[in-house]
Amino acid sequence: MELGIIGLGRMGANIARRLMRAGHGCCVFDRSAEATAKVAADGGRPAASVDGLIALLTPPRAIWLMLPSGAVTEQAIAEMAAKLSSGDILIDGGNSFFKDSVKRGQMLAQRGIHFIDVGTSGGVWGLERGYCMMIGGDEAAVRRLDPIFAALAPGKGSIEPTPNRQTRDPRVEQGYMHCGPMGSGHFAKMIHNGIEYGMMQAYAEGFNILETRGDAKLPEAERFTYDVADLAEVWRRGSVVSSWLLDLASIALAKDQALGSYSGEVADSGEGRWTVEAAIEQAVPAEVLAAAIFTRFRSRRDHTFAEKLLSALRYEFGGHVEPK
Amino acid sequence: MELGIIGLGRMGANIARRLMRAGHGCCVFDRSAEATAKVAADGGRPAASVDGLIALLTPPRAIWLMLPSGAVTEQAIAEMAAKLSSGDILIDGGNSFFKDSVKRGQMLAQRGIHFIDVGTSGGVWGLERGYCMMIGGDEAAVRRLDPIFAALAPGKGSIEPTPNRQTRDPRVEQGYMHCGPMGSGHFAKMIHNGIEYGMMQAYAEGFNILETRGDAKLPEAERFTYDVADLAEVWRRGSVVSSWLLDLASIALAKDQALGSYSGEVADSGEGRWTVEAAIEQAVPAEVLAAAIFTRFRSRRDHTFAEKLLSALRYEFGGHVEPK
Amino acid sequence: MELGIIGLGRMGANIARRLMRAGHGCCVFDRSAEATAKVAADGGRPAASVDGLIALLTPPRAIWLMLPSGAVTEQAIAEMAAKLSSGDILIDGGNSFFKDSVKRGQMLAQRGIHFIDVGTSGGVWGLERGYCMMIGGDEAAVRRLDPIFAALAPGKGSIEPTPNRQTRDPRVEQGYMHCGPMGSGHFAKMIHNGIEYGMMQAYAEGFNILETRGDAKLPEAERFTYDVADLAEVWRRGSVVSSWLLDLASIALAKDQALGSYSGEVADSGEGRWTVEAAIEQAVPAEVLAAAIFTRFRSRRDHTFAEKLLSALRYEFGGHVEPK
Amino acid sequence: MELGIIGLGRMGANIARRLMRAGHGCCVFDRSAEATAKVAADGGRPAASVDGLIALLTPPRAIWLMLPSGAVTEQAIAEMAAKLSSGDILIDGGNSFFKDSVKRGQMLAQRGIHFIDVGTSGGVWGLERGYCMMIGGDEAAVRRLDPIFAALAPGKGSIEPTPNRQTRDPRVEQGYMHCGPMGSGHFAKMIHNGIEYGMMQAYAEGFNILETRGDAKLPEAERFTYDVADLAEVWRRGSVVSSWLLDLASIALAKDQALGSYSGEVADSGEGRWTVEAAIEQAVPAEVLAAAIFTRFRSRRDHTFAEKLLSALRYEFGGHVEPK
Repeated sequence: MELGIIGLGRMGANIARRLMRAGHGCCVFDRSAEATAKVAADGGRPAASVDGLIALLTPPRAIWLMLPSGAVTEQAIAEMAAKLSSGDILIDGGNSFFKDSVKRGQMLAQRGIHFIDVGTSGGVWGLERGYCMMIGGDEAAVRRLDPIFAALAPGKGSIEPTPNRQTRDPRVEQGYMHCGPMGSGHFAKMIHNGIEYGMMQAYAEGFNILETRGDAKLPEAERFTYDVADLAEVWRRGSVVSSWLLDLASIALAKDQALGSYSGEVADSGEGRWTVEAAIEQAVPAEVLAAAIFTRFRSRRDHTFAEKLLSALRYEFGGHVEPK
Repeated sequence: MELGIIGLGRMGANIARRLMRAGHGCCVFDRSAEATAKVAADGGRPAASVDGLIALLTPPRAIWLMLPSGAVTEQAIAEMAAKLSSGDILIDGGNSFFKDSVKRGQMLAQRGIHFIDVGTSGGVWGLERGYCMMIGGDEAAVRRLDPIFAALAPGKGSIEPTPNRQTRDPRVEQGYMHCGPMGSGHFAKMIHNGIEYGMMQAYAEGFNILETRGDAKLPEAERFTYDVADLAEVWRRGSVVSSWLLDLASIALAKDQALGSYSGEVADSGEGRWTVEAAIEQAVPAEVLAAAIFTRFRSRRDHTFAEKLLSALRYEFGGHVEPK
Repeated sequence: MELGIIGLGRMGANIARRLMRAGHGCCVFDRSAEATAKVAADGGRPAASVDGLIALLTPPRAIWLMLPSGAVTEQAIAEMAAKLSSGDILIDGGNSFFKDSVKRGQMLAQRGIHFIDVGTSGGVWGLERGYCMMIGGDEAAVRRLDPIFAALAPGKGSIEPTPNRQTRDPRVEQGYMHCGPMGSGHFAKMIHNGIEYGMMQAYAEGFNILETRGDAKLPEAERFTYDVADLAEVWRRGSVVSSWLLDLASIALAKDQALGSYSGEVADSGEGRWTVEAAIEQAVPAEVLAAAIFTRFRSRRDHTFAEKLLSALRYEFGGHVEPK
Repeated sequence: MELGIIGLGRMGANIARRLMRAGHGCCVFDRSAEATAKVAADGGRPAASVDGLIALLTPPRAIWLMLPSGAVTEQAIAEMAAKLSSGDILIDGGNSFFKDSVKRGQMLAQRGIHFIDVGTSGGVWGLERGYCMMIGGDEAAVRRLDPIFAALAPGKGSIEPTPNRQTRDPRVEQGYMHCGPMGSGHFAKMIHNGIEYGMMQAYAEGFNILETRGDAKLPEAERFTYDVADLAEVWRRGSVVSSWLLDLASIALAKDQALGSYSGEVADSGEGRWTVEAAIEQAVPAEVLAAAIFTRFRSRRDHTFAEKLLSALRYEFGGHVEPK
C-alpha cells in the first residue's frame, strides 16, 4: 500500500527503504532536501513540502511521522490536524510521551483523523533486522495498516517458537502487536526502554566489577585481570545472560576492550525518566529502573554539590579532611 | 577422555549425559544410589562410593564435583585432597564462593593436585543447549581437560559471529573461556549471576508497571490493560531487550499470564550477595545489582520492622494513622 | 494583626490557636461547624461560610488556607479568586505541588491578589513548638504578614546559634524564611519532606538490621538481641545521628518496642514522589530519596507481579521451585 | 578510677582530658612522644612505652585502646594479650569490625582478660559534648568501668526526657548503654554509622536538588535560586528534619555556601560497608544504606568503565554519539 513518511533521519529513512523493498510505495518528505533526495534515490516519491506530500497521497491517506519527540512532533501533529482529512490515518512512530499521544489522538479524533501511536524498536539495525512495533489506536485503523506493519516487522525468522501460543494473535510472533487504545503503544515502548536502561546498567555494573578486579589493593591471590571482550563473547553461548545487548557489548569490546573512545558521559532520552514517573504514578517500586537513570545523570556531572556537602559534614563532625 | 563425576543432580547428571553423547567415558557417583543408577542407565560407569569412583579411574585422574556449594563441597574437597594423587585434577563445577576456591586450590596444590574452578551456566537447558563455562586454574590442566570443555560447550552454533575476533582465543566462540588463575572462573560466574539478577529485576519491574497500568485510580484514557504474554513475545523479535531470559519470560507468561502458581517469595543463591560484596570490596558502585538482591530479601518477609518504624514515626510527628 | 483561616483540621486549628495566644485576631471557618466551634471556643471569630469569613475581615485582607492539597485546595483558590479584592493576600499553607502554586499565583496576580505559598512544618507539635515556615511570594506581601510568621515560628529558643550568620536575614533564626518568588516556598517544603523520607528510611533500615540480629541462623557468638528502645534513647545524647525524628523513634519504641500496633503498610503524601520527579526534571541523582518512596510503595502491596516473574524465570531456567 | 589509654589522636586525647576533668587518673601512651606530652601537659601520667604504661597501672588494670581499626588495633590487642594479667580489662573504643571484636574477645577470655568493645560516637565535639557509647562485654567488667563511662557520657543534659522509660536502665539516659555480649557494642556503632551515612546522603540529595533549581533549562517561573545556608538554618527550628547533622550543615554552609573548598571526593571508613554486608548476611533489605555507600565510591572515581559501556551500547544499537 501507499504510505507517506515525514522525517527521514536514521530511523525514518530506513523505514521507507524497508517498506519499498517489500513493494510498498512511499511518498517522503524531510525538511532537509538532501535527506529527501537520498530516500528518493532509493525509490521514494519525494515531496518538497508537507502540502506536497499530502497532495501526492490518495485519500484516505496514511502518514507516518518519524520525528524527534517533544516540540517538533507536537508542531507537526498540529499541522497535520489542520491539513489532513477525515478518514486519514496519522501515525507517530517516534518516542513521544504517552500522555501527549493520548491528548493528540483525542484532538485528531475530533476531526475524524485516526491516530496511531507506534513504539518502534530496532535502531540502526532495523533496516535488515526489522522493527519490533508496539501499536496503540483503534482496531480498524490498525488493521488497515497491517501490510505496513507486516513489512516492517522482523517476521518469525529462525527464533525458537514459544509453546502454548496457538490461540493467540499471530501478528505478535511476526514482531508487531496491537497493544490497546491510543497511547498504549508509546507506553509499552517507554517501558521497553526503561527495561533496556535497567539491563544496560546491570551489564555495566557487572563488567565494571570485572574490569577493576585487578586492583593492586586486593590480596594477590584474589586479584584477577579479565579479558572482558572474551567474557562478553563467551556469555553469548549457553549462558543465562545472553541477549542482543550482550551481542552488542561483545562487538564494542572486541573493537577496543578499554572503550577508550568514550568519555563516560551518558545521555538519556526521555523514556527512562518517564518510566520512573509512571512507576511513581502507579505507586509501584522500580528501584533498578530508577538507579539506571540516576547513574546516567551522575555520569554527566562533575562533582555534585551533594558530594561536597558530605565532605563538609565529615569535616564538621569528625575533622576529616578528604584525601586527594 | 575419561572423567569422574560426583554429584548427579539436575546439573551433574546432564553434564555426564552430554559428555557421553560426545563419546567420553564417565564414571559416576552420587550418594543417592538411585541417582547413580539413572546415569548408569544412560551409559555411565557407576561407583558405589567415592573410593570406588577413584578406583575406577586411571591416573592421572580428572574428577568433576557438581555439588551444592558451601559445606557439602567443602567436605568433598577435603575428602578428595586426602584420596587423590599428585597429578590428578579436581574440578569444582558448582557455584562456590571464589575466595573458598582460591583457598581450596592452594591447599590442593600443596599436594600436587590441580584444582580447576568452573563456573557453569546453562541450567536445565544445558543438556541440549550446552554449557557456558568460565574456567580458572593453571594452563596445563585446563588444556588437558579441553576435550571435556569442548564437548560440554554449546559450540559456535548459528549465532552471528562478532567482528574483530580473528586473533583471539577460538575457544571463547565455542562457549568456554580460560579466565585466569584459580578462583577466576568462579568469580566470573558470580558476576554472571549478579548481572542475571539485575536483568531479571529490570524485566520484573517493567512488567510490573505494565501489569498494574489498568489501575482504576488512573485517568481513564491513560489506563491500559496489557496482554503481557504477548508483549514478552513481541519483544523477542527485533527489539533492544530481546534475550534468553525474555524467551523464558514469554514461555512462562504464555502458560499463565497471571503467574498464579507463584507465591511471590523469591529465593536467592549466594552469588547475587557475593557480587555486591565484591563491589564493596573493590569500592565500585553497584546500585542495580544491590537493588536486585534486596528486592528478593524483601519478597521473603512479611512486613518488616523497618516499615513499622516508618508508620510509628508518621504517627508521632503528624498523628497519621495508616489506612488499612 | 487580623487573619482569616479556612480549614481547621489538626494543622489549621493549632495555627489559629498559636496566633491567638500571641495576641492576633483570627476569623475562622471550616466546612465542619463543629471544627469551627472548637476554635471559636478558644477565641476565634467564627464564620458560617466563606462569604461570611470574607465579610468579617477588613480589607486589605489576609486569608490563610490550610486544606488538603489537590482538588480541595484547587477549588478553594478558585473560589477565593472570585471573591477576594485587589490588594488582598491569599496564603496557601498546605502541601500543594509547587507547579500548581506557580500557576495559581499567576492567576491571582492577574486579579491583583497576592499569593503566598508557605511550606509549614511542625505537625501535631506545632502549637507548642512553633512552625518552621518556607515562604514564597512577593516581598511586600511577605513583609506585611511578618507579625503572623513571627508568631507562628518557633523563635530562637535555646538552640545553639550558628557562627557566621551576623550579616544574614535575622528572620531565618526565628524559624521562617522568605525563599523566593511564588512556588519557592512549596518547593522548599517538598524537598524538606523528601529529605524527611530519606532520613526515616535510614533509621528504619538501621533499626531493622539491629532488630533481626538475633536470628538463630547466625553464628551464636555473632548473634545479638538488642533493646532497640534503649538504643534509640542512647543515640539521642552525643551521637552523630541525634535528631528530632530519633526523639520520636525513642518515644514510639519506649511505648512498645515491638511496634505491634502498626501493620507495616506505610502511606505517602505527594511530596516524596514530587521530590523524585524534581530530581528527574533537573537530571540530578536521588538514589536515597527514590529508594525511600519505593519502600513505601512496596509496603502497601502484597506480593508483586514483579516477584512472581522472578520466580517464574528461576523455574524456567533452573527448575527452581521456591521454598514456602 | 584509674585508666590507661593507648592512642592519643583526636579521639583518644580528648577522652583522656574529659576523664581527667571528671577527676579520674589517666596513664597515657602514644607512639608519638609529642602526642603523649600534650596529654601529659593536661594532667595525664605519661608512659614511654606500652610496658611502661602497664607498669604504671595497679592491677586489676583497665586499658582503653583508641587506635585506627584494622591492623594497628589487631597488633595492639595481640600485644596486650601477651602482657596483661588475668582480671585486667581491655577496652577497644575504636571502630573495629564486630566479628574481629568477637574473635579477639574470645582469645582474651582464654587468658582471663575481660574484653569490652565500645562504639564511641562524638567526634571532635566529644570533649565538650560528651561521648555516646555503645558497650559490649560481660556485665561485671562493664559495671566496674561505670565511673569511666559515666564521666565520658554526655549526661541527661537539657534534652527533653522520653516518656515511659521509668523502669528502664537509667544509664541509657546518661548516654551510654550496655548492649549485650562482646561485639554487640561495635555492631551497634557500625549500624549507627550506617544510619549516619544514609542521613547524610538524604540531606546531600535534597540540598543538591535545591542548589540546582536555578538551572536555566527549567521554565522561568519554576526556577528558584535558594540561599541554601539559610534553608539549613531555618530547618533547625521546628521542622521535622532538624538534627545534629543539620546543625553542622548549617555551620558549614554559613562559612561558604558554595562549599568551594571541597573537591567532592568523599572517603568512607569501613562501617558503612560493613552495615550493608550485615544486611546481606541477615537477608534484610538496605537500599538507602547501600545507595549511600555507593555514592561515595562513585565520587572517588573519574568516569567508570560502567559508564563507558553504556555509551558503547548506545552507539552500537542506535548510532548515538554522546554529546560532550
